[in-house]
Amino acid sequence: MTDHDAIDRRIDDMLDENIQELCRYVAQPSIAAQNRGMEACAAIVASMLEARGFAVETLPTGGPPAVVAERSGRSDKTLLIYNHYDVQPPEPLELWTDPPFEPKVRDGHLYGRGVSDDKGHLTARLLALDAILATRGELPCRVKWVVEGEEEVGSVHLPAFVKQHRDRLAADACLWEFGYLDHREVPLLFAGLRGIFYVELSVETAATDAHSGIGGSIFPNAAWRLTWALASLKGPDERIRIPGYLDSVKAPSTRDRALMAALPDPTASFREIYGVKEFLRGMRDPKELNVAQVFEPTCTICGLDAGYQGEGSKTVLPARASAKVDFRLVPDQTPEDAERLLRAHLDAEGFSDVRIRVLGGEAPGRTDPDHPFLALVARTAEPVYGMPMQIVPMIGGSGPNHAFIHELGVPVATAGFGHPDTRAHAPDENLRLAYYVQHAKHLARILDAFAASGA
Amino acid sequence: MTDHDAIDRRIDDMLDENIQELCRYVAQPSIAAQNRGMEACAAIVASMLEARGFAVETLPTGGPPAVVAERSGRSDKTLLIYNHYDVQPPEPLELWTDPPFEPKVRDGHLYGRGVSDDKGHLTARLLALDAILATRGELPCRVKWVVEGEEEVGSVHLPAFVKQHRDRLAADACLWEFGYLDHREVPLLFAGLRGIFYVELSVETAATDAHSGIGGSIFPNAAWRLTWALASLKGPDERIRIPGYLDSVKAPSTRDRALMAALPDPTASFREIYGVKEFLRGMRDPKELNVAQVFEPTCTICGLDAGYQGEGSKTVLPARASAKVDFRLVPDQTPEDAERLLRAHLDAEGFSDVRIRVLGGEAPGRTDPDHPFLALVARTAEPVYGMPMQIVPMIGGSGPNHAFIHELGVPVATAGFGHPDTRAHAPDENLRLAYYVQHAKHLARILDAFAASGA
Repeated sequence: MTDHDAIDRRIDDMLDENIQELCRYVAQPSIAAQNRGMEACAAIVASMLEARGFAVETLPTGGPPAVVAERSGRSDKTLLIYNHYDVQPPEPLELWTDPPFEPKVRDGHLYGRGVSDDKGHLTARLLALDAILATRGELPCRVKWVVEGEEEVGSVHLPAFVKQHRDRLAADACLWEFGYLDHREVPLLFAGLRGIFYVELSVETAATDAHSGIGGSIFPNAAWRLTWALASLKGPDERIRIPGYLDSVKAPSTRDRALMAALPDPTASFREIYGVKEFLRGMRDPKELNVAQVFEPTCTICGLDAGYQGEGSKTVLPARASAKVDFRLVPDQTPEDAERLLRAHLDAEGFSDVRIRVLGGEAPGRTDPDHPFLALVARTAEPVYGMPMQIVPMIGGSGPNHAFIHELGVPVATAGFGHPDTRAHAPDENLRLAYYVQHAKHLARILDAFAASGA
Repeated sequence: MTDHDAIDRRIDDMLDENIQELCRYVAQPSIAAQNRGMEACAAIVASMLEARGFAVETLPTGGPPAVVAERSGRSDKTLLIYNHYDVQPPEPLELWTDPPFEPKVRDGHLYGRGVSDDKGHLTARLLALDAILATRGELPCRVKWVVEGEEEVGSVHLPAFVKQHRDRLAADACLWEFGYLDHREVPLLFAGLRGIFYVELSVETAATDAHSGIGGSIFPNAAWRLTWALASLKGPDERIRIPGYLDSVKAPSTRDRALMAALPDPTASFREIYGVKEFLRGMRDPKELNVAQVFEPTCTICGLDAGYQGEGSKTVLPARASAKVDFRLVPDQTPEDAERLLRAHLDAEGFSDVRIRVLGGEAPGRTDPDHPFLALVARTAEPVYGMPMQIVPMIGGSGPNHAFIHELGVPVATAGFGHPDTRAHAPDENLRLAYYVQHAKHLARILDAFAASGA
């Protein structure tokens, strides 16, 4: 790594032009939830990769197309990079300082929808490759890319796509789409993601709402049916009551617990950001909270909708009611098991009238936190950040890493430039230019170390 | 009653002019929920009564003013008539055939907001008085009127108003604001009304919503707290679980059951109008349904509101959740008891975080179905309708009759021209002119019989 000073200088020199490229990429709305601008954005991704000498194909997935690219390098080792070109809807627009698709630099940050999640993570990586190619004329190893357009709506087609193209995507390791520095400015490496099973539960008890004075004693009430069905799923003890549901849950290992215990106390920031006064089940111990946050399966009511919700009173008996429920899955739970067990439970409890509409499902996936590739990614951060990345066995959120880990058989590491105020999914999403540059410099070191590694 | 033919003819002759007067009354919006046009509408009521020689006062109530009027008659007996000049909001406007405050006659019906509930019931009664005065120059007995402006928002101030003015409102009997003919064209006389206790239950667990991937395992969730609190109120057996709540419930008497058993089978119309497939607790016996419909206390969820309710999924953990809940009360339950017991129950079940906001409360009230005044009202219907009114001990809805029965000590009878498709509270509210005229003719007979009665 004798020439990393030269590559770092190239990265600094090329930054302005690279940010202009990112701004053009951000200026193309690509909102998967609204199927807006997907093909046009995929074309931008393809052309950016082609400009770096990648062999690029834009392939159908069943949803928005995925861009797959490959360029060989000095070593035969292959690093697969996963990114996505779709973004969250920008609403509420009135809370943006500047329009979301007209990115602007202010005070060392670039603002715009997708600058952090996830368009900037693609271009920061291109910046690293540009600097390496400008300095050396070749990459240290083979780099493959898969850039999908459905991450923000649950990567519905990605697992099947990965399975279908497993030879084309074959690699020795995978770099994930995102990464974070925490409030201490410590870069974190997440070794796993929880899965998700997201459903809408709905009940219809009649063709039309009734007057509560007429039907209250004798008509079935959809809001009551839904309430009772929900209450059967989880009680105030917070334990999920679906029979068999917890059977496949793997408790965190001693090593997992030790890694979680090394994380800072999250309680003050939870209190400050969310105004949470107490934690579930009276938890106070920061270590216990850190473990519970990511190693426990959840059943979260995300929304309730029935009858009259306006000001004052309306004496109505609702014919329809629905709830959105988010189940976070931990290894080795699967969305398929969750659906089967939920249906069986509702039927057994007398709620066969409660309809399940599946709105999202992703299996959890984790890489051994002690895998050599993760150690490599963590270690190569040190010259850039002044410290190695801190390895965290699991993050509370979800993503399609399961297919990469289990179909392709690769270790997956996160690295990136997210930060506590990055506002992904929210108005004024932003990236810090200093962190962006650090990520590019880190990637240059990852590639060299990976090319030279024995694994 | 030798001159009832003459009075009937006068009623027929005066109908057109009377309907024009009703149309002017309907044209003045008087929406209590929006505090719109209340004073102006009270002034119209006062001037209509003054035009009939009533001594009229418009009195403060704490809400919209109440109009109180009195005119003496040949006998010293006093009939008090209760009406209200406020109407329901007209929304949704697009479902009206003609604008709600521009009443129109079509096919023997008058359409407009309030034509049935309750402005037409006032003017049909004025029509009867006009015909009597034109024929005889005097009323058969003293008639008093109280016309309030808050019935559609729970008659919040009426009980205290009746108590405060009990001497001025003193009477021997009371005619209620409404009445119905059922689908068989049988006029029904309701001897009682259930009470109501309507609340909003709300929970706030944090200052702001959180990402479900972050907080699902460790943050309290307002939607779950609300769900569990609701489930503690009533289970799938439909029995209200609040300790002490049912202690004051009086079971219907043998006589009540016999009267309810005489009502027609309601199941076909419930299936047709509401699309209800089954009734609660597997009830199939029409007699049982008729009794349960009005003699059982209810706990009805009217609305549920929490978190995300739009299309698709949003991974949010709600900080706030609320429900509207309507408790119908039967004798001798009271809203005050209901509130006290509900609070105690929620506290005892660990839900002291659930806030109760009272949005309405009226005690139930009933007159003995065998009271002589009710028999008189029922009997005098026969020459007009070809049959006496059918006496029904209780109706499922609510109203402020408790104060009249218990403060003034008067029997209360319903009579009026509502019909199964009258659409009170809904678009295209209407009255049938033929029924309207019958009600006026019936009132003329009620007044004569009442003036001559011994009670």
